[in-house]
Amino acid sequence: MKDFVFHTPTEVIFGHNAEDKIASRIQKYGGTKVLLHYGGASAERSGLLPKIREQLTAAGIAFVELGGVVPNPRVSLVRQGIAICREQGIDFILAVGGGSVIDSAKAIGFGTPYEEDVWNLFLGKGTAKSCLPIGSVLTIPAAGSEMSNGCVITNEEGWHKRAYTTELSRCRFAIMNPERTFTLPPYQTACGVTDIMMHTFERYFSLEDDMTVTDSIAEAILRTTMQAAPIVLKNPTDYRWRAQIMWAGSLAHNDLTGCGTVGDWATHHLEHELSALFDVAHGAGLAAMWGSWARYVMSTRVSRFVQFAVNVMGVENDFTDPEGTALRGIERMEEFYRSIGMPTSIPELIGRPATEEEILLMADKCCRQDTHTEGNFKVLYRKEMEDVYRLANK
Amino acid sequence: MKDFVFHTPTEVIFGHNAEDKIASRIQKYGGTKVLLHYGGASAERSGLLPKIREQLTAAGIAFVELGGVVPNPRVSLVRQGIAICREQGIDFILAVGGGSVIDSAKAIGFGTPYEEDVWNLFLGKGTAKSCLPIGSVLTIPAAGSEMSNGCVITNEEGWHKRAYTTELSRCRFAIMNPERTFTLPPYQTACGVTDIMMHTFERYFSLEDDMTVTDSIAEAILRTTMQAAPIVLKNPTDYRWRAQIMWAGSLAHNDLTGCGTVGDWATHHLEHELSALFDVAHGAGLAAMWGSWARYVMSTRVSRFVQFAVNVMGVENDFTDPEGTALRGIERMEEFYRSIGMPTSIPELIGRPATEEEILLMADKCCRQDTHTEGNFKVLYRKEMEDVYRLANK
Repeated sequence: MKDFVFHTPTEVIFGHNAEDKIASRIQKYGGTKVLLHYGGASAERSGLLPKIREQLTAAGIAFVELGGVVPNPRVSLVRQGIAICREQGIDFILAVGGGSVIDSAKAIGFGTPYEEDVWNLFLGKGTAKSCLPIGSVLTIPAAGSEMSNGCVITNEEGWHKRAYTTELSRCRFAIMNPERTFTLPPYQTACGVTDIMMHTFERYFSLEDDMTVTDSIAEAILRTTMQAAPIVLKNPTDYRWRAQIMWAGSLAHNDLTGCGTVGDWATHHLEHELSALFDVAHGAGLAAMWGSWARYVMSTRVSRFVQFAVNVMGVENDFTDPEGTALRGIERMEEFYRSIGMPTSIPELIGRPATEEEILLMADKCCRQDTHTEGNFKVLYRKEMEDVYRLANK
Repeated sequence: MKDFVFHTPTEVIFGHNAEDKIASRIQKYGGTKVLLHYGGASAERSGLLPKIREQLTAAGIAFVELGGVVPNPRVSLVRQGIAICREQGIDFILAVGGGSVIDSAKAIGFGTPYEEDVWNLFLGKGTAKSCLPIGSVLTIPAAGSEMSNGCVITNEEGWHKRAYTTELSRCRFAIMNPERTFTLPPYQTACGVTDIMMHTFERYFSLEDDMTVTDSIAEAILRTTMQAAPIVLKNPTDYRWRAQIMWAGSLAHNDLTGCGTVGDWATHHLEHELSALFDVAHGAGLAAMWGSWARYVMSTRVSRFVQFAVNVMGVENDFTDPEGTALRGIERMEEFYRSIGMPTSIPELIGRPATEEEILLMADKCCRQDTHTEGNFKVLYRKEMEDVYRLANK
């Protein structure tokens, strides 16, 4: 097992009427002039934004608004946010929405004090030294950004999608009211569930497979999420099971499921090129890739996939046939994805097979036009990336 | 399920040579003059204290020492610590040891700026307004104090054992190297395992039993701890399984296993009177009480004990006989306690039955000479407290 540092300072306020605590928490963490950052019409329509504006005004907290965050959030809007924060002397960012909004807020947060163009950080050409404090009001459980140290931003020039990670960007607080997720459409709910499970998978499929307490927690989160998904798809206003998904989403990505392991992240990065090229939902892209990745890497350590099959997917262990048991686990996972309306291949994701040119382009971008590799469970070079894309293209 | 706030800001540095980070972390959290607080000879003998002194000196961090913390840590030493911190202008406390040392450090931490006698806080006669920052170097996984918000102190005048809880007292950092637990004697190891499991039980046995993700994590921690215990008792230098116990100990008491539930804590408080009266190890006292508590309260919600029996203790579910299944779970738990050398009754704990006078005295102190109740799964009044003590006295 690996030595690790675990540090999740985000204060989570979870449950009914959690939103009522927004102003007091901003004040607790020193905010006096806030950038209110959000996406589109849904937070307006649901009454959440009007409620927040009212609360901030009543508390005497000044704020400037910046809406318009889209899925796969853009660096152009981040740059606008940075300009506003500098001009207006903003000292706190409140992100209202899902992972895209929180990621955008983080990039604005560490981009504001950064003297060069923020995209340099995503290119690995610099290091953030500080970050404006950020609070979040979560409305889409999926990305786990509300407790994580990372963010993913898309640059429209060339459609590059890149991550930047810094402990400085962890939210000071996260407001989570499961009722705020009642109106999520089924497809977005399913994408969220997939993303939550994948954040766990990326840490679980590790050659450092001797951290049993971490494993057992990861398996617990996976099983609960799978139990919850069909229930909320049938009954979107089921508070109990919406709550399970919401809390699982934070725990899946706050590093708890990675204590002592080495993450893989190949599926995530292969998917980033998919959603950068086709602008599809991240969760759906992950579902489309995962089974192919799993079959491709399984032989590296079959025992890990047997453990997954038995402990998570409820497969009977055929002790005479580890490969068969492992494969059955992958198949069951794909059956689950299909049962919640997720694709399990690229053609199902984008409505047609990717062309050979598109596959080469994605592999090229994923390996960053050089010898960059992905994955740790099995290291993928340029050729292996193509292989996995082709496997997922059938 | 209950709404909850989850806030665990402690930075955990876990693994080999974690101690090397002590000085840098004290500096990160602003310490310039440190109270080095510890217990007895073992940390000296193991070389840990000499190593820490050397490191602090090399880093130019001034420090004053206060050793002598005993199990069931005393308020008299806490008062000494407070006097030292005030006289010497201490701005950081480093606790080196197990829960007793960390609890003592916490009481010194919030007692130093508190204008009245620190014991008032434990009597509920005041509120801590601030606390010196605290870091810990954990050598005994058990109490979970390294990530918790609570501490338990014993007042020798009348042998009262009381808890005080404040978010202010959460450690800034916790240094955890499983190797530091290799030399723990079997009895202390088993007491620690019992305490870890009990911290989970106290939150798990809740009438708020619809927070599935929390349940499943609690069950995972319990199973892993039980898997690890016999292995380290046989081979005390097994790093992998010492690590499971150490990390489980923190997660069992940092509130993760209580998100959405209402804790019970009756067993803990019944035990506090036991260890205050007989000065026994807290973990052993818990093992001696738990089975009797469980049998006494089981009928309040049998389904909860069936879930425990099946999901944690691996009991076959006899669907025609929930009570039988539940009882089998309690019996298996007691079998486990005995297998690791823990008592399952008061006579086994103290070598003789408690006298009727002693039982009345403990019940009297537990209900604080008035109508104070304990427990939430089943509320225990004065008479019920006596009942549970008597049941455990057979």
